[in-house]
Amino acid sequence: MSFEDGADRLLVTPGSELYVKVGRIMSNERVKRPVPFAHKLNESSSIGRVIGVVSGKGGVGKSTVTALLAQQFARKGLKVGIMDADITGPSIPRIFGLKDRLKAGQYGLIPCVTSEGIKVVSMNLLLDDETEAVIYRGPVIAGAVKQFWSDVYWGDLDVLFIDMPPGTGDVPLTVYQSLPIDGVVIVSSPQQLVSMIVTKAYDMANKLHIPVLGLVENYSYYKCPDCGSEHYIFGESKADELAGTIGCKVIGRLPIDPALARLSDEGRISEADIVFDLENE
Amino acid sequence: MSFEDGADRLLVTPGSELYVKVGRIMSNERVKRPVPFAHKLNESSSIGRVIGVVSGKGGVGKSTVTALLAQQFARKGLKVGIMDADITGPSIPRIFGLKDRLKAGQYGLIPCVTSEGIKVVSMNLLLDDETEAVIYRGPVIAGAVKQFWSDVYWGDLDVLFIDMPPGTGDVPLTVYQSLPIDGVVIVSSPQQLVSMIVTKAYDMANKLHIPVLGLVENYSYYKCPDCGSEHYIFGESKADELAGTIGCKVIGRLPIDPALARLSDEGRISEADIVFDLENE
Repeated sequence: MSFEDGADRLLVTPGSELYVKVGRIMSNERVKRPVPFAHKLNESSSIGRVIGVVSGKGGVGKSTVTALLAQQFARKGLKVGIMDADITGPSIPRIFGLKDRLKAGQYGLIPCVTSEGIKVVSMNLLLDDETEAVIYRGPVIAGAVKQFWSDVYWGDLDVLFIDMPPGTGDVPLTVYQSLPIDGVVIVSSPQQLVSMIVTKAYDMANKLHIPVLGLVENYSYYKCPDCGSEHYIFGESKADELAGTIGCKVIGRLPIDPALARLSDEGRISEADIVFDLENE
Repeated sequence: MSFEDGADRLLVTPGSELYVKVGRIMSNERVKRPVPFAHKLNESSSIGRVIGVVSGKGGVGKSTVTALLAQQFARKGLKVGIMDADITGPSIPRIFGLKDRLKAGQYGLIPCVTSEGIKVVSMNLLLDDETEAVIYRGPVIAGAVKQFWSDVYWGDLDVLFIDMPPGTGDVPLTVYQSLPIDGVVIVSSPQQLVSMIVTKAYDMANKLHIPVLGLVENYSYYKCPDCGSEHYIFGESKADELAGTIGCKVIGRLPIDPALARLSDEGRISEADIVFDLENE
């Protein structure tokens, strides 16, 4: 990954590692959690693990973290899918530069596939124009999420990531109550305001007995490309404090990175060569 | 406003003016727009103008812009209110440092009041603990917004700002269809991904015949406090391009400002001495 204008190269140093452990997520000792209003998976598909990525508040780079996680799992040789459950504000197709539309097949809707083989389903892959508003009320939005589960021919997946919309409304409630979710990764930023709202997301997961796999702090700091000084633009890191409050582990800190923002914007996230520590614990 | 650590003083220069014109918003020639499912305002209240602040995607500083707008109007001597319609991710009380809870009075719920006399209603002012999740499905969320309109004793207001949640779901739909809204201000950031999603917010307003008063670009650039160089962290400004696409005016550009982020976090937004050009056109 290189940039002509000299923008900082994305570099995840040991101090800013994202180490969601494959071992932890993919272990065989899957805890069977009761799913109160279980919705049936597509008959021709089987999915090993289901991981939600949540944030409480929008704009913290949750979709980028989802994409990077999925990519890293795919590079380990796992069969990976992403369900973009942010029906009214979908970011995933743009991040991967997906231009095609979902097609109907014999066993259900056929996901689009990224250059690294990640299967993606998103409302924006169903629209003729990606800027068109999806003006849905909550129950219809929740219905779309259920259809993404039952009416999509996912085939065999080792792990499905669900990119959730901000807030604690219909979509997370439906995902938590109707899909066999194994746990959630929470994405936050150092702003206190964000931490307050992210605690709501944790509170919801907790009330519904969903395990929290860990906390990722994005936009941790900015390194001036001209003088090299580091700035806590959105405040000093609150990751440890927040993780303490909600009783989970900090599993990563990512800097504010114009290069990564640009890769997301231009659909070139697959060029991000971040090496996360994904080994077993 | 000053900071010990030498963080940049917030300075809105002529090139980064936010000039939502009082003349435009408060003109007497109010266009009567049909409200298909009109919900009745609290009987003991009267509200002159209703202005929505929308963003499509979260995390662009919409609530901060709402607070700054309201503050500026209040400083002009107008009677101002803010309805925080982001039921599951409310930011407004924290930004103003409001600690009290709403109380029931003879004519309805009594708003909390900021140091500058702005009346504020928010779901977080009804919770015992601000980090508690509000796990509501869409129709209940929309119902809460309606109650904020009919069951709150607003008294006489010149202008009410409605801080909307991200997305194009229940809340904006309810506000557009049930409240006599005069127009919306759209808040965006330079990231292309955000622009794509903000266009959805515009598309929704357009389909429901809601006038767009203008576009505010937040997080336009960052000025390194150490060397003074300016960086387009989230990409070059796309405000003009975006405004051209959606056919509205750019009414402001704000820099990424750690000082402003901190004032928001610490509930000290009233110390922001931004001088917006709010004169008549």
